[in-house]
Amino acid sequence: MESLYIIKIGGNIVDNPTLLKSCLDAFSNVKGSAILVHGGGKLATQMATSLGIEQKLVEGRRVTDEATLKIVTMVYAGHINKTIVAQLQGIGINALGLSGVDANLIKAHKRSTSKVDYGFVGDIDKVNSTFIQEQLIQNRRLVIAPITHDGEGQLLNTNADTIAQSIATAMVTLYDVHLIYGFEKEGVLKHIQDEDSVISLINGPIYAQLKKDKIIFEGMLPKLENAFHALNNGVKSVLIGKAEKMNELINGTAGTTIKN
Amino acid sequence: MESLYIIKIGGNIVDNPTLLKSCLDAFSNVKGSAILVHGGGKLATQMATSLGIEQKLVEGRRVTDEATLKIVTMVYAGHINKTIVAQLQGIGINALGLSGVDANLIKAHKRSTSKVDYGFVGDIDKVNSTFIQEQLIQNRRLVIAPITHDGEGQLLNTNADTIAQSIATAMVTLYDVHLIYGFEKEGVLKHIQDEDSVISLINGPIYAQLKKDKIIFEGMLPKLENAFHALNNGVKSVLIGKAEKMNELINGTAGTTIKN
Repeated sequence: MESLYIIKIGGNIVDNPTLLKSCLDAFSNVKGSAILVHGGGKLATQMATSLGIEQKLVEGRRVTDEATLKIVTMVYAGHINKTIVAQLQGIGINALGLSGVDANLIKAHKRSTSKVDYGFVGDIDKVNSTFIQEQLIQNRRLVIAPITHDGEGQLLNTNADTIAQSIATAMVTLYDVHLIYGFEKEGVLKHIQDEDSVISLINGPIYAQLKKDKIIFEGMLPKLENAFHALNNGVKSVLIGKAEKMNELINGTAGTTIKN
Repeated sequence: MESLYIIKIGGNIVDNPTLLKSCLDAFSNVKGSAILVHGGGKLATQMATSLGIEQKLVEGRRVTDEATLKIVTMVYAGHINKTIVAQLQGIGINALGLSGVDANLIKAHKRSTSKVDYGFVGDIDKVNSTFIQEQLIQNRRLVIAPITHDGEGQLLNTNADTIAQSIATAMVTLYDVHLIYGFEKEGVLKHIQDEDSVISLINGPIYAQLKKDKIIFEGMLPKLENAFHALNNGVKSVLIGKAEKMNELINGTAGTTIKN
């Protein structure tokens, strides 16, 4: 089967022209099909601050009230998505920017409020793999903003790491799927302050031990849960590492490789 | 040939749930293929005010500096576009929201600064009719935000009326194209304060006379120039009227019909 690379980056990269360029150059060099999923939480927080809209966090997670939903829709699906697509078009990549509502790409439901009310936050039900394949076949590369919808007219804010994993999992019957998480660190670190302490390989038993020893820090857990979920559902490889080193991550010569 | 309706509305409609619903219901009832083009200038101005970013106007036209380009990209391609697409998905229309940069939909060039520097404003070079047809054939309806790009990585702010006309003109070899401009008035008015004074039909000679008599007010001129340009280039009909009466406009029972 043909390869499909799904690459997730933080959306804040659009405010760093050098990093953005190197990351998109690497994305443009991927052989086969490729999808870029971006976040943008820091820029959304900045915009909320500029507009004087207070952001509420519950257990480290953003509560998405109506005003915040408008901000994330503007910042993610508007500013970040279109800036990235324009840059890709500028280097000869025929990119198509989408949010989960477009062509019913990602249907979700509002997260249940039984414990905490996170507001307009969506948990994913279904990825439209037919539409994705149809676009990829036309040699388009997709750039996806982390906004989904409930099919009843409501937009929903959805975690970009989870979107990347859900798309990866949805495409495994059609492609050999490789999932790459680019973020601010060199990889999963043994010592959180030491960028030289990258754990090059994590498999199931190693993961269990790392959790037991409390070596894996809080922010890392959801990424690794997403990684193992993807691997358990047919994704061929998962890599986590520094967005700056996207070329090496794609070649598998940097970052942390996650294996079953 | 199959019919294609291209309907332009002001993007400010998203802040009026009743009007939005009636307009999108009418759009969903169109037989054949359909494209919605939206503006949103008032909401962009509101957002600029909220962010304390001064808007400069030259001869009534917005100068798009870098900060303003970011705002219009957020408001048009993010907030307005995705809100409309979500509502359409909610009423069973498989809508796909796009800006001119996506899939190289609308290539433009930065307006020459020989007289006035309007900043990041784009004049259209080429509409990607192949991509549009490919999506319409899949029974998708397109929702288009008035942002274009120069193919070199630069986003550009572009007049939504002109985008609607350029798309209409680009599609005439593939469809019987009908262009509808929905706005805040009943149509082209004989007396600007009297909504009952709609001129039901304007052809070339009538238009010349109306201009001579200075009956056509300033804001109306570009719409009519766009209308005649479309008709001169193969568009079958052009209608201008109240967005609230979209059903009647589609049926040709309200507004002003423009004919050659």
